[in-house]
Amino acid sequence: YRGLADKKEINEKVDEYRKGDFDTIPDPGNLVHFKTKDALEKTPKTDVQDKGKKDKEMPPIGTYVLPHPIWTEEQLHDVQVTHKEPEGFVDKAAHKTVMLFRGGFDIFSGFKFGQRNERKWLNRICFLETVAGVPGMVAAMMRHMRSLRRMQRDQGWIHTLLEEAENERMHLLTALQLKKPSLFFRLCVIGSQGVFVTMFGVSYIISPKFCHRFVGYLEEEAVKTYTKCLEDINDGPMQHWKTQPAPDVAIRYWKLSPEATMKDVILAIRADEAHHRVVNHSLASLKKDEFNPYKPGK
Amino acid sequence: YRGLADKKEINEKVDEYRKGDFDTIPDPGNLVHFKTKDALEKTPKTDVQDKGKKDKEMPPIGTYVLPHPIWTEEQLHDVQVTHKEPEGFVDKAAHKTVMLFRGGFDIFSGFKFGQRNERKWLNRICFLETVAGVPGMVAAMMRHMRSLRRMQRDQGWIHTLLEEAENERMHLLTALQLKKPSLFFRLCVIGSQGVFVTMFGVSYIISPKFCHRFVGYLEEEAVKTYTKCLEDINDGPMQHWKTQPAPDVAIRYWKLSPEATMKDVILAIRADEAHHRVVNHSLASLKKDEFNPYKPGK
Ligand SMILES: [Fe+2]
Ligand SMILES: [Fe+2]
Ligand SMILES: [Fe+2]
Ligand SMILES: [Fe+2]
Repeated sequence: YRGLADKKEINEKVDEYRKGDFDTIPDPGNLVHFKTKDALEKTPKTDVQDKGKKDKEMPPIGTYVLPHPIWTEEQLHDVQVTHKEPEGFVDKAAHKTVMLFRGGFDIFSGFKFGQRNERKWLNRICFLETVAGVPGMVAAMMRHMRSLRRMQRDQGWIHTLLEEAENERMHLLTALQLKKPSLFFRLCVIGSQGVFVTMFGVSYIISPKFCHRFVGYLEEEAVKTYTKCLEDINDGPMQHWKTQPAPDVAIRYWKLSPEATMKDVILAIRADEAHHRVVNHSLASLKKDEFNPYKPGK
Repeated sequence: YRGLADKKEINEKVDEYRKGDFDTIPDPGNLVHFKTKDALEKTPKTDVQDKGKKDKEMPPIGTYVLPHPIWTEEQLHDVQVTHKEPEGFVDKAAHKTVMLFRGGFDIFSGFKFGQRNERKWLNRICFLETVAGVPGMVAAMMRHMRSLRRMQRDQGWIHTLLEEAENERMHLLTALQLKKPSLFFRLCVIGSQGVFVTMFGVSYIISPKFCHRFVGYLEEEAVKTYTKCLEDINDGPMQHWKTQPAPDVAIRYWKLSPEATMKDVILAIRADEAHHRVVNHSLASLKKDEFNPYKPGK
């Protein structure tokens, strides 16, 4: 079957893929076939964001995800707001940068003023998660390229960084189930991605330690933000999230119970952020050629 | 345990990691602990490229890898040199570019002239694999950023692209078990990575289709190259690879038998290249918002 890379066969295959006939892909004979048909029929399609186009055959969001931690009820409620004191110049610079970002963003987004509400929360969460997915991917690419360029092993960091990047992207795709971004919002997201990818990329070349410390402090703020969100859910303007059902994509990704609510989703996201917090603070304290202690999905 | 992100606890953790006490990492209670101790003692350490430094605690190369196809004996020998005829301008441009690269490289590397030997083969393989790891990672990052920026799902492409990138990096790390790169060689690698990352990145912004087709054609050449290498092993200047033992990292990565030889390694690499060939030709023929038909590890 390895012969199928000429024009005729590629075109035939592609036509089959378009029909959703994924099972006809040439698979190594010794591997189990993907259980599409069954799995697909059982999975609700509401979270496929393509206006019904080809919905019937398209696997739902998050069908193939990297291993990631699944939190117990106890772990979800165990998360605390913490702070790692900056030690030395790099740490201080990283902390100052995060404080500057947060201050600026609080003012620009109007989050500081007036009553918080669902619209403000969703704006804040969506925007922050479009940014949060950047560092892990940029860092993973940098280390991948470094391994190729210096012709040496990576020391097991890449998988953890990719896991973080995907996890943040899943936060975004989950929040988007409740929000339709406006044109202005989209333009802000595009602009800040351009700036942030460039800044973070250049910083990672200069000082990976600064970058991981920066993410560590960013995640301290993320935990604060989601803790505040939980306060608003428990005893504030967001109490309807105590009962509002969680989107399907969230139930699937975090293996929540079918009756899970938006509150459970926010708890899971906050636990993820606390995890990135300790991971990045640890990576910042390790030298770049030391072995990454975090295993896939942990 | 989620509280451990202050200065004292991070520093204590990092000290423990440095001792190799990875098992003390705060793990979600419901996940199995990594079986380091046992697995490590049984695994030969010869392929850890760090001159013995901390060898005792450092897991070997390829401890955490993405799912990837494991080929049967039949599949290994089934690989053929194929060619997908270019259709339309983009295809033709991609094919021309690959032909130009190959021609230039054959001359520059002196591969065209004189007798082929182990030194020439290792130079060629190492150099090409430092380049081959670039496209998958760049494409994965581009699609990840696009998903964040446009706030829409990725359609399942990222995992396949990351799998390809890691697989090529494993080809490189395997070949490096037999070669110590010279300073001149290192400078060539650094220079070409700079050029290629930039060119491929810019091309991916302009035309992902061109880029995947380009990789498809590149992999056609890779299959040719490794087929020629196998000819040299079967009946040419490389016959000692019929019996030379495979490096440990290769046995682990491709799940080869403990008696596997370098010939088995080259067969496995060639099957990987044939797989990237059909994958990239297919991705090039799909629209960028169509679902990727390839599942993890397939
Ligand atoms: Fe997040
Ligand atoms: Fe985060
Ligand atoms: Fe390769
Ligand atoms: Fe390749």
